[in-house]
Amino acid sequence: MSKQQYTYMFNEVDATMRNLCGGKGANLGQMTKLGLPIPEGFIVTTEACLYFYKHGQKLSKEIMEQVKESLKTLEKQTGKKFGDPNNPLLLSVRSGARVSMPGMMDTILNLGLNDIVATGLARRTNNPRFVYDSYRRFVQMYSDVVMGVGKSEFEKIIDEMKEAKGIKLDTEFSVDDFKKMIKRFKAIYKEAVGKDFPENPEEQLFGAINAVFLSWNTPRAIYYRRMNDIPHEWGTAVNVQSMVFGNMGDSSGTGVAFSRNPATGDDHCYGEYLMNAQGEDVVAGIRTPEHIDHLKDYSEKLYNQLIGSMKKLETFYKDMQDIEFTIEEDKLYLLQTRSGKRTAQAAIKIAIDMHNEGLITKDEALLLLQPAQLDDLLHPHFVLEELKQAKPIGQGLPASPGAATGEVAFTVEKAIEAHNAGRKVVLVRLETSPEDIEGMDISEGFLTARGGMTSHAAVVARGMGKCCVAGCHELRFQKDYALINDVKIKEGDVISLDGSTGLIYNEAIPTEPATISGDFATIMEWATERKRLGVRANADTPKDAKQAREFGATGIGLCRTEHMFFGEERIKAIREMIIADTTKEREKALAKIQPMQEQDFEALFEAMGDYSVTIRLLDPPLHEFLPKEEKDIVALAKDLGVSLEKMKLRISELEEANPMLGHRGCRLAISYPELPIMQTRAIIEAYCAVKKRNPAYKAVPEIMIPLVGEIRELRYLKDIIKETADQVLKENKMKGEYKIGTMIEVPRAALLSDIIGAEADFFSFGTNDLTQMTFGFSRDDGADFLKNYYAKRIYLNDPFARLDQEGVGQLVKMTVEKGRKANKKLKIGICGEHGGDPSSVDFFHRAGLDYVSCSPYRVPIAILAAAQAAIKHGK
Amino acid sequence: MSKQQYTYMFNEVDATMRNLCGGKGANLGQMTKLGLPIPEGFIVTTEACLYFYKHGQKLSKEIMEQVKESLKTLEKQTGKKFGDPNNPLLLSVRSGARVSMPGMMDTILNLGLNDIVATGLARRTNNPRFVYDSYRRFVQMYSDVVMGVGKSEFEKIIDEMKEAKGIKLDTEFSVDDFKKMIKRFKAIYKEAVGKDFPENPEEQLFGAINAVFLSWNTPRAIYYRRMNDIPHEWGTAVNVQSMVFGNMGDSSGTGVAFSRNPATGDDHCYGEYLMNAQGEDVVAGIRTPEHIDHLKDYSEKLYNQLIGSMKKLETFYKDMQDIEFTIEEDKLYLLQTRSGKRTAQAAIKIAIDMHNEGLITKDEALLLLQPAQLDDLLHPHFVLEELKQAKPIGQGLPASPGAATGEVAFTVEKAIEAHNAGRKVVLVRLETSPEDIEGMDISEGFLTARGGMTSHAAVVARGMGKCCVAGCHELRFQKDYALINDVKIKEGDVISLDGSTGLIYNEAIPTEPATISGDFATIMEWATERKRLGVRANADTPKDAKQAREFGATGIGLCRTEHMFFGEERIKAIREMIIADTTKEREKALAKIQPMQEQDFEALFEAMGDYSVTIRLLDPPLHEFLPKEEKDIVALAKDLGVSLEKMKLRISELEEANPMLGHRGCRLAISYPELPIMQTRAIIEAYCAVKKRNPAYKAVPEIMIPLVGEIRELRYLKDIIKETADQVLKENKMKGEYKIGTMIEVPRAALLSDIIGAEADFFSFGTNDLTQMTFGFSRDDGADFLKNYYAKRIYLNDPFARLDQEGVGQLVKMTVEKGRKANKKLKIGICGEHGGDPSSVDFFHRAGLDYVSCSPYRVPIAILAAAQAAIKHGK
Repeated sequence: MSKQQYTYMFNEVDATMRNLCGGKGANLGQMTKLGLPIPEGFIVTTEACLYFYKHGQKLSKEIMEQVKESLKTLEKQTGKKFGDPNNPLLLSVRSGARVSMPGMMDTILNLGLNDIVATGLARRTNNPRFVYDSYRRFVQMYSDVVMGVGKSEFEKIIDEMKEAKGIKLDTEFSVDDFKKMIKRFKAIYKEAVGKDFPENPEEQLFGAINAVFLSWNTPRAIYYRRMNDIPHEWGTAVNVQSMVFGNMGDSSGTGVAFSRNPATGDDHCYGEYLMNAQGEDVVAGIRTPEHIDHLKDYSEKLYNQLIGSMKKLETFYKDMQDIEFTIEEDKLYLLQTRSGKRTAQAAIKIAIDMHNEGLITKDEALLLLQPAQLDDLLHPHFVLEELKQAKPIGQGLPASPGAATGEVAFTVEKAIEAHNAGRKVVLVRLETSPEDIEGMDISEGFLTARGGMTSHAAVVARGMGKCCVAGCHELRFQKDYALINDVKIKEGDVISLDGSTGLIYNEAIPTEPATISGDFATIMEWATERKRLGVRANADTPKDAKQAREFGATGIGLCRTEHMFFGEERIKAIREMIIADTTKEREKALAKIQPMQEQDFEALFEAMGDYSVTIRLLDPPLHEFLPKEEKDIVALAKDLGVSLEKMKLRISELEEANPMLGHRGCRLAISYPELPIMQTRAIIEAYCAVKKRNPAYKAVPEIMIPLVGEIRELRYLKDIIKETADQVLKENKMKGEYKIGTMIEVPRAALLSDIIGAEADFFSFGTNDLTQMTFGFSRDDGADFLKNYYAKRIYLNDPFARLDQEGVGQLVKMTVEKGRKANKKLKIGICGEHGGDPSSVDFFHRAGLDYVSCSPYRVPIAILAAAQAAIKHGK
Repeated sequence: MSKQQYTYMFNEVDATMRNLCGGKGANLGQMTKLGLPIPEGFIVTTEACLYFYKHGQKLSKEIMEQVKESLKTLEKQTGKKFGDPNNPLLLSVRSGARVSMPGMMDTILNLGLNDIVATGLARRTNNPRFVYDSYRRFVQMYSDVVMGVGKSEFEKIIDEMKEAKGIKLDTEFSVDDFKKMIKRFKAIYKEAVGKDFPENPEEQLFGAINAVFLSWNTPRAIYYRRMNDIPHEWGTAVNVQSMVFGNMGDSSGTGVAFSRNPATGDDHCYGEYLMNAQGEDVVAGIRTPEHIDHLKDYSEKLYNQLIGSMKKLETFYKDMQDIEFTIEEDKLYLLQTRSGKRTAQAAIKIAIDMHNEGLITKDEALLLLQPAQLDDLLHPHFVLEELKQAKPIGQGLPASPGAATGEVAFTVEKAIEAHNAGRKVVLVRLETSPEDIEGMDISEGFLTARGGMTSHAAVVARGMGKCCVAGCHELRFQKDYALINDVKIKEGDVISLDGSTGLIYNEAIPTEPATISGDFATIMEWATERKRLGVRANADTPKDAKQAREFGATGIGLCRTEHMFFGEERIKAIREMIIADTTKEREKALAKIQPMQEQDFEALFEAMGDYSVTIRLLDPPLHEFLPKEEKDIVALAKDLGVSLEKMKLRISELEEANPMLGHRGCRLAISYPELPIMQTRAIIEAYCAVKKRNPAYKAVPEIMIPLVGEIRELRYLKDIIKETADQVLKENKMKGEYKIGTMIEVPRAALLSDIIGAEADFFSFGTNDLTQMTFGFSRDDGADFLKNYYAKRIYLNDPFARLDQEGVGQLVKMTVEKGRKANKKLKIGICGEHGGDPSSVDFFHRAGLDYVSCSPYRVPIAILAAAQAAIKHGK
């Protein structure tokens, strides 16, 4: 057996080796191959990481040997020697998983420094300031990243020393200050860790590699992966690279840049840099950096070299690139490249531009987009008239577009608290850090005082499609409030952020829905052409139906009639029906609702033009329509003229131990046939009315029976529906069609889908319930144990957000197969929430469904996901 | 296309044609073929019944034509003419389904009579008394059966007339009385139906055929079929037979007889007859009939002819027969034969005797038994010592053996009321009728004043395996109480019945469990030899375990550990654990329970000898261990020394919307690993203790994880269990084995059974939960709609009593296939309640399971069902 190779020099690697070497490593290798200026280095593979986790979080002797071998090669390549005070090789150690996980993994710079090496290097470079600045950074980073010593301890020392000296910036520290600082840092380390800071460079290196591997499994990394559907099994690689220094003085610097504008998509390089700084300074947002265009003023040659490199990368990768670079004494080095995160708006513009530039095909352009990201474009923005009247109280950088209104929260805890109480939140912070990820996830938008367009808050906001106003210098924090200019902002106050202008308002500003136009419309056209799956919407009102059509839906896949029962008049009638003792009394109560339902359906049919509408019969258990509070019960009893005793008896009769598995869906319709009769009447009357007005009306009403698990349920209700519908058509002296189908939402329906399919016109998967029953857990009750399940990595994804293809997916595939075999004309769709989830849409495409149906705001996402599925898997 | 044949003459039919001609019809044909004395007749097939239901409950012209044709043939055979006053053919019209449904379907005798025919027949027979007795019977039966005019109206008239004349028996009526009676009956008919009683014999015949078909779908017929697993799709045939008359005078009579004793199994003809009576008189129990042995005194020739016929039938059918016969002017006719209902005790004796007589093989003997009937033998009987001290207050006929103690109910309504309130009931009635079936089903036993050993109450009791004391003349009903001799019995009083002696006690008498011995033991031996499936028991206590072993269980398939948590000390510790905030506190609380659990397991292992015990980890949600009432909550808070506020908070935290789909099963163990650790410790410590005492101990503890639906759940817990178990073995310095397996009870586990099976030692189907989740309904909530579902024939069986082979069965088969493919050593069993249901056991045999596990009292049933499955389907 040949020995397994756990380390690779950059020049052995190319872009195809992403799985083994991580994205960062593969790209560093590829860039080396493309002849770009890359500091030499090597990669410890993801397989080493998997080995590490399989063997009690330890590296094997063999892996360690290979690392040492690669280090020797690197020494040869650079002509420097690791740990040699006379010509020391210093290293950066960075993580690099298959896909970029910004802010999630940890980086250590300047590794290899110790007291002796520092003395030597100071002598050799004649720049002790640079050396000890680097050294103190290293001690701090190493302590934090490898040993988990909290950052705040170090920041406190820096702040104390600044105050004592009366200075504001790190650059004002002297060499001696740094030396003192290093001593104090090391003391903190010793106190926290219980032993001296490691002076041995090799010990430092292996400590750092271990730390990178360990950081793969921090809670935040796990959370990020779950949020982004990244398998925990991938592991991370480690990139060990020779250091170049942006902090060697005024002819050195460091920066980050995008090959196009990540906010707008404009084809103009966009970035920031800081002279005399190390990489972390730019991203951390402590000093506000320069715009990349200013680099031209410093050196046109460097600027052009940078732009040229980026175009070369863009052409190779066929995508907009996000790079890090360092200038060491006027020499440019690229430290990393990756596909740049961008706003949805930018993503669309870039895809279309690149296609127009001839760089990519239409299919490639469609694949360049993340369907879920379209969400950003579909959310409301401020109503322009209202916005004009609002008076901003301050302004920051427009770091991520969109509109956010919400209650101010200064901490993640407060934000989560308010969110859990059902209120919208805007997170207002000095700056954000990866620890804040969970709080950011549930906020409407972020406002920060520090940091630029590439600060943590800005990057995360664009990734999440949220609004962000960053680097607002007018924002100052006081003890328990903040000031924006002179306006006092307390937690709980409502503010609004405009992510496109950076303006801040201390009031709630009304928003209006998005529309599809311009580039967005172009992409939707391309996607609509390309997809095979139909995309319908779940909509219960004409307003939602109209919105859905505007977004491209070609039908309603689910109209939940129960939502129509909650109007004041209707709920009263429904309650009368529930309290009634006889079928006659129930019919009387329902007769009151019928004309209202008719109007609802008529309006819905009209709103959808010739597109079909699937109407589901009443689904929830009856107790959902009854009050729970004593006073409401008393009032209702009085209102309906029944005794309180009787009212309470009926309520207690309807109580259920497991409502999810109770008297609902078609079971209700079978117990009270007057219900489906009334609803069928309303549907067909509405249909007749529409068709009378417009004899060319083409759509056919689709009546959907929920919770069917047994063919006799379908037969019983089909008979009732048919008889009623035919009667109504006859009364109206009209010919007309209608379809009767079933939800597939209990596992038994899937198992018997051949038998049920033979007698149904259509199937629609209710994947929410199907998931609940297949897993045997209720969404309402999951929270208690699911947290634990995610933490212990027992579930990798929320099966309600992303279809469980392994388990529930088997039932879906089985149903399609059996159902189609029994009935070639059977139309099959899905109307659970999974209908708007891209990875689930991909699955439904492969499973051969006819259509997906999702909430109106997810229709464009589903269309794009359906197109991508068609491109990837064929029609 | 050849014309479909809807009617068959008796001589065209044999016993194999049961599906088409019904059991009764096929047997009448067969008896004709065997040369026995059968009145001629013809059959309208079950296919005509199906046609009837498919076409709006109407007969086709073709069917009616065929009936008329057959009638002509019958006229030729008998030499009589339908509707001819000079020589009239009179008919009996009876239902006959594939299997016998006693008392469920309706019969009409003497059809063809009208005023003219009666006059003619009276003249011809010179026996007007017989003619008008027959006529009034016909009018009453026809009104009741065909037109649904209630019996009581007619009874009232008869009682009035008796009172007016001062007579007691029907036989004391004069011809004129009968004529008056007929007029009054017809008046009732006209008032109820709105038109005259039909005089046209053909109209009568088709009315009767229709009525028989309609009676297939009366609620009581449907209820009976559901109770006895008879498909609704079979339909019934109609038997149209020329009348012979037992009421032609003193040389005529009618009776019923069994070829062997149906209560004890003794090989001696057993039956009853009445001279000068029609069939209904014997069964209805209005006059107390003569013992069959007395027929010898009347006519040895007739008696011997009867006995000879019965032996002939028994030899042909290889089963004990139950016949009806009529003597018309000293000539014997057989009117029907069928396999006789018998007590479990009789069934066993008959099967063994017939095998010993060389009539049947051992396999045939086993197939002759109904497994579910064994239940009767397994139920407690009175403790002999206690019985000796009890003083009977009266005695009736020992109509069905067994012991019953319960509250007296005079009506079905009262019986159901007491049953629903959780109390045991003894139904005490003048006589019972088919309308009482539901009330009889829920009673412990029946006591009747009228009727003999073959009365309705007696037949039904033996069928249901309940105790019955019939024909107790000492029982007299007063206004709202009854007297037995001089003892007053009110509703709600507790009485006891001994079905083996017929004695009645006005006190509760303690019962003791059954044992297996004698013939029962022989059958169990034969069955045990013949079966392939293992049969284990669900048992949580050493007492249950011992009982199970005595009944033949070879292992425990399910020990529910939660049942061990309810002792006073334990529940306190469990509650401490639930309230605890930290793992440490929880561990402390659990440490108190561990030694008790150890003792439980030790005792269980000891009780089972070398048979394995499967222990399921804690399954129910934690809130089941907490009090629900305010005062108990207050007391508990005080007891545990926590604030009431905290106690209530914790209780509200644990509340679940759908506990069935909540935080339970392996989810609990994953949230609180200290739980499975404690339980594993207790199991392995107990195992070590037993093995130390008995180094030859062969059984291996089987640890079962509930509610697994995802392989990572199994992996996580398997790691914890293994680590703990190995640690305990090490601490005890012992080598030992243990197995770790999972329940298959959520649909996803079945779907992923290949993946889960590869890492499990065994599977055990939890078919209760699997049924709930596959159907999507909760047992706790089903009652509300299930009644309707049965009434509307949407569910034909209770899927919790009988495995849903169509739906849930697919998951079972899939699991066996996938699981075995992934792991050849995988042992697969079932421990839901279906493990003791014969038809489900048959399915599990076919599905290839290794064993079934059921409650101890169902073990013999499962053993016999498993043997029958092996005989029917091969091993």
